[in-house]
Amino acid sequence: MIRPVIGLMTDFGLRDTYVGVMKGVIAGIAPDANVIDVTHGIDPQAVHQAAYSLLISRPYFPADTIFCCVIDPGVGSARRAVGVRAGGHTFIYPDNGLLTPILAETPAEVAVDLDDDQYHLDEVTTTFHGRDIFSPTSAHVAAGVPLEDLGTPIDPDSLVEIEWPQPERTPDGWKATVIHADHFGNLITNLRGEELSAPYDLWRIEAGQVRIRGIHTTFADVELGQPVAYVGSDGFLELAVRQGNARRQWSLGLGTAVHVEKS
Amino acid sequence: MIRPVIGLMTDFGLRDTYVGVMKGVIAGIAPDANVIDVTHGIDPQAVHQAAYSLLISRPYFPADTIFCCVIDPGVGSARRAVGVRAGGHTFIYPDNGLLTPILAETPAEVAVDLDDDQYHLDEVTTTFHGRDIFSPTSAHVAAGVPLEDLGTPIDPDSLVEIEWPQPERTPDGWKATVIHADHFGNLITNLRGEELSAPYDLWRIEAGQVRIRGIHTTFADVELGQPVAYVGSDGFLELAVRQGNARRQWSLGLGTAVHVEKS
Amino acid sequence: MIRPVIGLMTDFGLRDTYVGVMKGVIAGIAPDANVIDVTHGIDPQAVHQAAYSLLISRPYFPADTIFCCVIDPGVGSARRAVGVRAGGHTFIYPDNGLLTPILAETPAEVAVDLDDDQYHLDEVTTTFHGRDIFSPTSAHVAAGVPLEDLGTPIDPDSLVEIEWPQPERTPDGWKATVIHADHFGNLITNLRGEELSAPYDLWRIEAGQVRIRGIHTTFADVELGQPVAYVGSDGFLELAVRQGNARRQWSLGLGTAVHVEKS
Repeated sequence: MIRPVIGLMTDFGLRDTYVGVMKGVIAGIAPDANVIDVTHGIDPQAVHQAAYSLLISRPYFPADTIFCCVIDPGVGSARRAVGVRAGGHTFIYPDNGLLTPILAETPAEVAVDLDDDQYHLDEVTTTFHGRDIFSPTSAHVAAGVPLEDLGTPIDPDSLVEIEWPQPERTPDGWKATVIHADHFGNLITNLRGEELSAPYDLWRIEAGQVRIRGIHTTFADVELGQPVAYVGSDGFLELAVRQGNARRQWSLGLGTAVHVEKS
Repeated sequence: MIRPVIGLMTDFGLRDTYVGVMKGVIAGIAPDANVIDVTHGIDPQAVHQAAYSLLISRPYFPADTIFCCVIDPGVGSARRAVGVRAGGHTFIYPDNGLLTPILAETPAEVAVDLDDDQYHLDEVTTTFHGRDIFSPTSAHVAAGVPLEDLGTPIDPDSLVEIEWPQPERTPDGWKATVIHADHFGNLITNLRGEELSAPYDLWRIEAGQVRIRGIHTTFADVELGQPVAYVGSDGFLELAVRQGNARRQWSLGLGTAVHVEKS
Repeated sequence: MIRPVIGLMTDFGLRDTYVGVMKGVIAGIAPDANVIDVTHGIDPQAVHQAAYSLLISRPYFPADTIFCCVIDPGVGSARRAVGVRAGGHTFIYPDNGLLTPILAETPAEVAVDLDDDQYHLDEVTTTFHGRDIFSPTSAHVAAGVPLEDLGTPIDPDSLVEIEWPQPERTPDGWKATVIHADHFGNLITNLRGEELSAPYDLWRIEAGQVRIRGIHTTFADVELGQPVAYVGSDGFLELAVRQGNARRQWSLGLGTAVHVEKS
């Protein structure tokens, strides 16, 4: 049998025992699972950041990975716990819109309200569903329980969505949008590098007051303190200041429109 | 054979190689062990914090988990390295009182001075017993060596204890004590939620100058900046300020008496 | 079959998904590997710090451990990706001099330019070789591919070296050098404790303006604020200030000469 992989993503950090306890719960149900920390460094309740992180990480995980993702501003409210199968992976998470960018690429095959409490811990608190619901349901999937058995089937269209714009064609190129600012202040757009053809020095980029000429291969192609556009390691067009902080210096961020054109 | 679980807890943090090296040692002795980081974020030498963390984490780990816990203010002194079996788990740690709250609930079945150096590394330094003694002994237990073989049996009553008050009955309820302040400043008492019966709005809580009326389900039940009492996800009565820091605002902390009464 | 061990060391930290993604790649190629985080807390691009960390960690890992070490100031340049077999371990890393201190003790048996791209990911970016080259090649070794098959054999003497002085004999002892300052500010020299014979109180240590008399067993042997020399848990002579920061107080650091003499 292939060893099941569970990818954990939370905003719990590593100072407390929250993540350790989730792994303890998993070990009791699915002792052979290979539990991988995708990251626990998501900013508190930052669903957009988590959605981006999952979008770019997912392609590098094996088929059938179970992603257990707990960024949960709505814990204790009536929000659903859901399981979704899409693109060969299973996602177990609070219904917070986390999958919006992934489902824009890959339709959901199955979606389930994880409401069968035989797969939860015996006592479910109002504040720590990562331990009480998401870890045990993820572990039961790893141990072989079909996702469909964990609760009530739901219409994938009923899943909560977050704002996640897609790039739009324009006569001379694309209207893209900033979907993430990393902790260097680099601005990541939703435009994939494969949409950008040579010759690269003819592209013009406009974002707010910023004008950038050409798409470069590396930071080192421009002087210190100069703006630069390039395709980052996650495959998206990014805007940055060499050795600077574009987000702060330009006062741009999530949702900024970025015009990418060639004439 | 079931895959043995080792839960690691230290105050080493993750910046250095200390934890990595402990796992290297374990991998050489018990290659099949499932090593889970309970946390490495205990404040330096904070035995009370570690004792609380272990108390609340332990119930979520599988039977026969081996907890290897290195919070060791006395490293290099004559303090013993000990192994204790209690409540279906094994604890390998410096004799620092860490188990006091657990042993108040669950008596020790076996206690051993880990003094048989054939189960230590060949060279034992004066400063890193996590690597030289606690990792290899934990790994040998995981590999099947009975705890009793790792050294000399000792009387469990001889184990070091820390101050860890139990809640006391009073005519109208309980006298509890703050046993932990988390990093939000929430004050966690030693009173378990199951001791508190409905109707919950009749309970009165007094701690220092603070008076709280009623035990609520969630923070959201009170206004911003207001005090609130509730049963936390670890099952204990907690006192907090909504969106505030109770420890700092009230100047209360570890050891504060908390009167919880209903009339 | 013995479960292969992969030790990961990077300067990526744990806030982002970089390390998680590397583990996802490994899980797809070598699902049974035991992946151990040596540390991800190396300062950005600090090859010397990484070299020291690997030197002291390596002896505690099992035979045949594959160390995948990504501290890569030269990513995107023409620097080679290399694999080296030495002292019973395999090292997969950018050719940055990381192995200099290890190869001074243990000659390389095999060195390979990891240039066979069938063992890389299908798309190799210019900025994230940890994911695209170092993780998959490490995983292929773990899965049983001989190191020699991963690319072109190279002369071990062609590997990049960093400055890493060896201690020198003097008429009355040793001229050592500071090779690392830890985050307490303790200064670690390249002189191994086994070169220092009793009686320990006769040794005189000089470093810059600092004079220390005798080599002690523990910090506690001197008064608060006093300088102290001792053999640390990694086996090297260290200089420190009890409860102080030697690096800052003495303005000494990497490369400082330390005279250790007895008459």
